[in-house]
Amino acid sequence: MVDAAESRRPGGRSTRVLNAVYTAVGELVGEGAERVSFPVIAERAGVNPTTLYRRWPDVGSLLEDVAVAALTREGESAPDTGSLRGDLTSWAETISRDISRPERARYLRAMVAARVHLVAACPVNDVRREQAAEVVQRASTRGEPAPTVEQILDHVVAPLYHRVVFALEVDDAFARRLVADVLAMSG
Amino acid sequence: MVDAAESRRPGGRSTRVLNAVYTAVGELVGEGAERVSFPVIAERAGVNPTTLYRRWPDVGSLLEDVAVAALTREGESAPDTGSLRGDLTSWAETISRDISRPERARYLRAMVAARVHLVAACPVNDVRREQAAEVVQRASTRGEPAPTVEQILDHVVAPLYHRVVFALEVDDAFARRLVADVLAMSG
Repeated sequence: MVDAAESRRPGGRSTRVLNAVYTAVGELVGEGAERVSFPVIAERAGVNPTTLYRRWPDVGSLLEDVAVAALTREGESAPDTGSLRGDLTSWAETISRDISRPERARYLRAMVAARVHLVAACPVNDVRREQAAEVVQRASTRGEPAPTVEQILDHVVAPLYHRVVFALEVDDAFARRLVADVLAMSG
Repeated sequence: MVDAAESRRPGGRSTRVLNAVYTAVGELVGEGAERVSFPVIAERAGVNPTTLYRRWPDVGSLLEDVAVAALTREGESAPDTGSLRGDLTSWAETISRDISRPERARYLRAMVAARVHLVAACPVNDVRREQAAEVVQRASTRGEPAPTVEQILDHVVAPLYHRVVFALEVDDAFARRLVADVLAMSG
């Protein structure tokens, strides 16, 4: 349990709780836990379940927050290589390696399995949209013809996530092929 | 339970068992059952659990077979409209409407959630590959330039499944946009 002394340090407590909760979720999903519920997460994290019920409307929302936190920790601006092809290739390869790690792939599957109804927003997708927009913006500054942000999401990001979620193999060659295809669209 | 008399009619029993099992799986996943296990499926289908253990190595394989059976029931050849754009558009719209039905979307999520390790083959994907190959073959017979089968899978099929599995909205306009993009590749 996070103790009372902890809660007197401003800022310290909530960050520590958040880290404990995110780590617990990552561990449980990584271990292939069949049912990741608030009580189970709270027990693993050593926090009071009410902390979770107060902060997240359901387990799915917590899973999304963890996914976005993981993305944000791991370097979040798209790479700036000086060319559109270079930026897209390096970015697509990074995404591909990142999401295909077994624990991350399992995580994504658990996250989507928790979605029952259509979602209005997908935070993971929103992070990718911002990164794609940066890449397109830099290309436009250099005067390079570029696909749209939506085309990059649909034809580079979506096929990578599709393969990973369906447990099909991805590699750098696949990432590069997707980039070549999307560049041919605006070619 | 499927009775002994039934098993004396050649062909009858196994088809009847299969239908009962597939229906049970569809119902359970559709109802949002948290854990679809062999005993639970057997009980709902009114068959002996050993029937399931004998036929499928795990629940995931059974889910895949049901998914393929559903695809196959629902008209499987890609439409023949006389043009590549027409074929792809009609096919993409059909896929989009089919997999975005709530019970089918939940089904796909349950199916991928059951995948723990990389799969060597994805039967659902294989059905789509055959359909795409038909469309490309007809285009080639007519002398129309066409994208490759892999491009159609990566840039039309994958983005549709990606959105549905992530519980994001798809509609005919989205399907048509994907087709326009993939046609621009082979420009």
